[in-house]
Amino acid sequence: MNNQNVLLEKFKQAKYPIGGNGKRNIQTLKDAFSNVAGDIESDVYGKGMLIEKFQEKIADYLGMESSVFFPSGTMAQQIALRIWCDEKQLNKVAYHPLCHLEIHEEDGLKELHHIQPVLLADQTRLIELEDVMGMEEEIACLLLELPQREIGGQLPEYETLEKIAAYCRDKGIMLHLDGARLFEILPYYQKTAAEVCSLFDSVYVSFYKGIGGIAGAILAGTKEFTEKSKVWKRRHGGDLISLYPYIISADYYFDKRVDKMDEYYQQAKELAVLFNQCSHVSTLPEVPVSNMFHVHIHMTKNKLEPLLLEVYDETGIGITSYLNESEKGICSFELSIGDQYAAIPKELLSSAFEKLDQKLKGKAYS
Amino acid sequence: MNNQNVLLEKFKQAKYPIGGNGKRNIQTLKDAFSNVAGDIESDVYGKGMLIEKFQEKIADYLGMESSVFFPSGTMAQQIALRIWCDEKQLNKVAYHPLCHLEIHEEDGLKELHHIQPVLLADQTRLIELEDVMGMEEEIACLLLELPQREIGGQLPEYETLEKIAAYCRDKGIMLHLDGARLFEILPYYQKTAAEVCSLFDSVYVSFYKGIGGIAGAILAGTKEFTEKSKVWKRRHGGDLISLYPYIISADYYFDKRVDKMDEYYQQAKELAVLFNQCSHVSTLPEVPVSNMFHVHIHMTKNKLEPLLLEVYDETGIGITSYLNESEKGICSFELSIGDQYAAIPKELLSSAFEKLDQKLKGKAYS
Repeated sequence: MNNQNVLLEKFKQAKYPIGGNGKRNIQTLKDAFSNVAGDIESDVYGKGMLIEKFQEKIADYLGMESSVFFPSGTMAQQIALRIWCDEKQLNKVAYHPLCHLEIHEEDGLKELHHIQPVLLADQTRLIELEDVMGMEEEIACLLLELPQREIGGQLPEYETLEKIAAYCRDKGIMLHLDGARLFEILPYYQKTAAEVCSLFDSVYVSFYKGIGGIAGAILAGTKEFTEKSKVWKRRHGGDLISLYPYIISADYYFDKRVDKMDEYYQQAKELAVLFNQCSHVSTLPEVPVSNMFHVHIHMTKNKLEPLLLEVYDETGIGITSYLNESEKGICSFELSIGDQYAAIPKELLSSAFEKLDQKLKGKAYS
Repeated sequence: MNNQNVLLEKFKQAKYPIGGNGKRNIQTLKDAFSNVAGDIESDVYGKGMLIEKFQEKIADYLGMESSVFFPSGTMAQQIALRIWCDEKQLNKVAYHPLCHLEIHEEDGLKELHHIQPVLLADQTRLIELEDVMGMEEEIACLLLELPQREIGGQLPEYETLEKIAAYCRDKGIMLHLDGARLFEILPYYQKTAAEVCSLFDSVYVSFYKGIGGIAGAILAGTKEFTEKSKVWKRRHGGDLISLYPYIISADYYFDKRVDKMDEYYQQAKELAVLFNQCSHVSTLPEVPVSNMFHVHIHMTKNKLEPLLLEVYDETGIGITSYLNESEKGICSFELSIGDQYAAIPKELLSSAFEKLDQKLKGKAYS
């Protein structure tokens, strides 16, 4: 067992993991189905009460005319961009260099849809109005990810969003929202989902980030748009005979957690303070704007890992299951606050961070 | 409620449906999960014990080196053909005109992969060795569907399969098996799955046909082939964070039903005799070669439907939930035998078919 596995295993055994909604295990499904009657009919190839009702419910929540349930966001978003490119007869879109489609999808957008991306801004910062206005290429669609996950979950000013939306509308550029974590940002913006979505032509949301479902996504837009997306869903092999295992769990955890996002957000800010008080530690963003942030520790993995393991052992608190190490020897990891944070006794948490701070100080000069 | 809906509703209410494994409802999932421990960890993006063990189990059963679990056969098969086309640098494949990819997938193969099909044989018959040898176009891959579902689930002679396989191997044509109903044909061929699969370079099997799971498919081949398929699975949006709802149910129903295929096959033959004894009725094939067949009744829908409803009412036996009507006024429907057939009292079944025969005779001359 190498160190990475030790960290993962010890994290799994920790009594108090600070992030997340709980273990990703079969119980997630069992809980969601425990009060569902066995004689409820399956959805069948995208039709039936079970899927249609959920699609209507989420479309209403997002303030969009129509929505379609997809097995994955990868599928939903490629399809959204394809529809806009076909409509504009222009195979070019713009997004951030750390967009999910650019770094996590094995180039599906290019290999399956032959759509070329224009990369806006850079890997260290958000897309701003100037980036959009300064684009030389003509594009069919601009994708904005809110929050920008790979840089710690940062958000533009709401006014910036409104200006970008107005500019795109003016220029005939379709605006698509990668809202994998849309529910999580509403407390910061102090907006409803419908208010945010009204700036966009199409919207994708996920049910296994803050919501904590099993898998699955919704793609929303006009009725005309979602009808087209159903054809592409079948082409992609996503129009399964039954999607109810994901739909029922998405619905269950949506109801359970969608109103807890402000709590998670407040807790994330509280936790970020604790991290930032430790030597050699900083969070990105310094003050979180959702339930998530990244932690950067200026120490090599070899030095840091044993020290984290000590904290887990001494306090029962699990901070992270992994460490990414940069070429410069800086470690980082992501945290998303969910149900588990509230279960940690406050004194234990303070004590864990005091220990962490002391150990980091000691190690740095060893 | 139009007539089609009456037939569907009355069929659903019938005490004894003659086909299938039971209603497609939530109980299918509940049964599969009732004895599964909640603390079993989810698969995570195609990795983890849960998915890997099932993939190994099915690869072994099929006698293939490796296998990958997919959310759908649509996705698995397009990807198989894409891999072979890329390998041969030739975007052409051959299959039957009623192949699933040609008629049920909104042209995904063409729209996403730009692969052109050559259609072999015609809509009334199977692909024979002569069709393959007579092809003028060069192709990367030949897809054979066993049994050919849309013509009642017919099968070529096993010797024909062997000859086609030998020919393809000789000509450097990859041979892919659409084995959506592979388990169902083994009793007729008196072969193991591994023996049939040894003729093919890649194999797809489904877990919600005779097996009766919720959804899901396996694509099998060499390790090199399946590794490539995983990259495409991610591109398609099929590499879900959790596929366990389908995997656990596929595994459960595979164990429950894979050895019952001979029973279903014998029952299908028995049932086809009952149909063929009725006036104006014939089955395709006349003698089934799997658990499935099509029923053709030489009567218009308007005449036939009320008559079927009478039989359902008088006997509690549900024969079909729908009728397709041809331009010539011939009705047809598909039957696949599963667990439900054995539950019907034999005398009741005989009586239902006597009634059906009498009603058909009476109606034909009315």
